[in-house]
Amino acid sequence: MDGVILTPLKQIHHPKGDVFHGMKKSDIGYAGFSEAYFSTIHKGDIKGWKKHTKMTLNLIVITGEIEFVIFNGTDFLTVKLSRNNYQRLTVSPGLCVAFRGIEKENLLLNLADLEHDPQESINILLQEINYSWGTI
Amino acid sequence: MDGVILTPLKQIHHPKGDVFHGMKKSDIGYAGFSEAYFSTIHKGDIKGWKKHTKMTLNLIVITGEIEFVIFNGTDFLTVKLSRNNYQRLTVSPGLCVAFRGIEKENLLLNLADLEHDPQESINILLQEINYSWGTI
Repeated sequence: MDGVILTPLKQIHHPKGDVFHGMKKSDIGYAGFSEAYFSTIHKGDIKGWKKHTKMTLNLIVITGEIEFVIFNGTDFLTVKLSRNNYQRLTVSPGLCVAFRGIEKENLLLNLADLEHDPQESINILLQEINYSWGTI
Repeated sequence: MDGVILTPLKQIHHPKGDVFHGMKKSDIGYAGFSEAYFSTIHKGDIKGWKKHTKMTLNLIVITGEIEFVIFNGTDFLTVKLSRNNYQRLTVSPGLCVAFRGIEKENLLLNLADLEHDPQESINILLQEINYSWGTI
């Protein structure tokens, strides 16, 4: 889907605890840095839809598993991220995003090119975009 | 200690899963962004010492609890971070850092102003700096 990039990330084994890459300034998908924040999502709960008008998201799932759905007005793209499918999901502004928690604990990091600004994003009720969420 | 900043971070309650602040470009302690990576540390294990010669660390503990010890050549500073003591730890270059895992699962995020470069940091054996780690 135009405006979406999936970038595989390295996991580096260490006997005292592994290291997980996130994002480098030199990576494809890097759009600037202004804010990093974490979001958790309970199992079976869905946050969304949200459409950012200016912000590019760079999303990394470091704990549990999260199912992301991206809607461009015509098509849906679905991707499940976890340490087992450890990729960074870059989402350009103008796309609608929703996400659902799959495991007991689910944690994502967003490395955003803009600081949070409620004026910049549009919330759309879950039922206003007709996507068929399967069972977990 | 000179070169060390602790910045309390907000946790925002959300019925579907809380949000945790990380770092904004406008925050005190922000020194630039070039790389974000996660590091895990097993319970009772200690990573360190490491002295960065150029990199400023911005460390956030999002899962479990991690005990950090910072040594400036004379004094030690000890701080335990977790969601219960949710602060960002900024460490300027030139200081020695070691950290120990306290819980079963412990996860930190470093928001670094430089990309990883093994030439930029100095590893010092744990026993070369005489710090008395207590029992967990």
